Amino acid sequence: MFTNEEKQAIYKVIFSRRDVRTFLPNPVDESAVKRILEAAHHAPSVGFMQPWNFILINENDLKQKLAWAADKERRALAIHYEDDERSSAFLKLKIEGLKEAPLSICVTSDPSRGGSHVLGRNSIPETDMMSTACAIQNMWLASCAEGLAMGWVSFYKKTDIRDILGIPHHVDPVALISIGYTDLYPKEPILETAKWRRRKELDQLVYYNKWGES
Amino acid sequence: MFTNEEKQAIYKVIFSRRDVRTFLPNPVDESAVKRILEAAHHAPSVGFMQPWNFILINENDLKQKLAWAADKERRALAIHYEDDERSSAFLKLKIEGLKEAPLSICVTSDPSRGGSHVLGRNSIPETDMMSTACAIQNMWLASCAEGLAMGWVSFYKKTDIRDILGIPHHVDPVALISIGYTDLYPKEPILETAKWRRRKELDQLVYYNKWGES
Repeated sequence: MFTNEEKQAIYKVIFSRRDVRTFLPNPVDESAVKRILEAAHHAPSVGFMQPWNFILINENDLKQKLAWAADKERRALAIHYEDDERSSAFLKLKIEGLKEAPLSICVTSDPSRGGSHVLGRNSIPETDMMSTACAIQNMWLASCAEGLAMGWVSFYKKTDIRDILGIPHHVDPVALISIGYTDLYPKEPILETAKWRRRKELDQLVYYNKWGES
Repeated sequence: MFTNEEKQAIYKVIFSRRDVRTFLPNPVDESAVKRILEAAHHAPSVGFMQPWNFILINENDLKQKLAWAADKERRALAIHYEDDERSSAFLKLKIEGLKEAPLSICVTSDPSRGGSHVLGRNSIPETDMMSTACAIQNMWLASCAEGLAMGWVSFYKKTDIRDILGIPHHVDPVALISIGYTDLYPKEPILETAKWRRRKELDQLVYYNKWGES
């Protein structure tokens, strides 16, 4: 059972957690990292397959290579965005974050973990990746609680990340995470502050008994 | 900033949250459901696309139909499991949960939300579904904090669920969630208690700078 104070703390972290892109160089407390990874590892997973791995990266050379892979993708995306300055600027910020943050974590998802017939994964194969996403959300909440900032980069070619970090071909590098301290923890989502997109009204996303019925 | 008490509450919910399959018939407090959905809606999403919708189902007829769809899939899976009694029994429990729980929520993910070139989704299309998974994890933590039990069913044919709930073809029903009170909140994952699979050692899942280096 949870007390009112405990409930409030839980909602506080859920509502205040933000995607951060600016980091201070100070190294991250190792015991905090350990707790953040324990939080990730206690996420739910389909058939209890625990498909995740965490590659902790602090070597500068590797961080530069990861930033290069993301920047290459940003430049390719700029062509699709037809050089929309705004999109490119946002993605650039994320690349700076990757270089600045004292710790990067590549989170991977292994679809073969637990054998060929994982209970529940047989029907919806994406559940392995969704399990890993639950682990990442736990990391995010734990980081926020620890006073640490976290950013998630998801633009890169997976093959580049596999090459840089020596990840086997069948394993999916689903996220590049930056973790560090910040003096700029946003109150609202950055994309909202930048009037990129607004938070939708929850009421309009909730239906009753059938799609579209409110 | 978070106090030590707040941090402890956050880790408490992360570590004690469980997948539940047995529910009491008591109706769920509506204000708690509202808070759980707000928690979901405050998950991160790639390009702030907020791809989720929530269909709240309390009509008995619809719940029976959803349970039928899941049971059909369970029987099909039993053939692949070559009638492994244990797998089938676990999945049956989940179907009972779907019928018993006073509230079912179908969580969907709309890959077209936010247009064709969502920032960050261009490179890894699965990020829409991963965003929705983060929302589900928030629901799970909020439910646990509210003293409510939650179960996630992921075995069904998506087309069956679309037919039953009138969901458009391009929208993915990624989870059938059961929510209710329980007198049996497990201390450990059910699949662990049943000696199905053990929790892995975290140390063995963490690498340093390169895959495989510990």
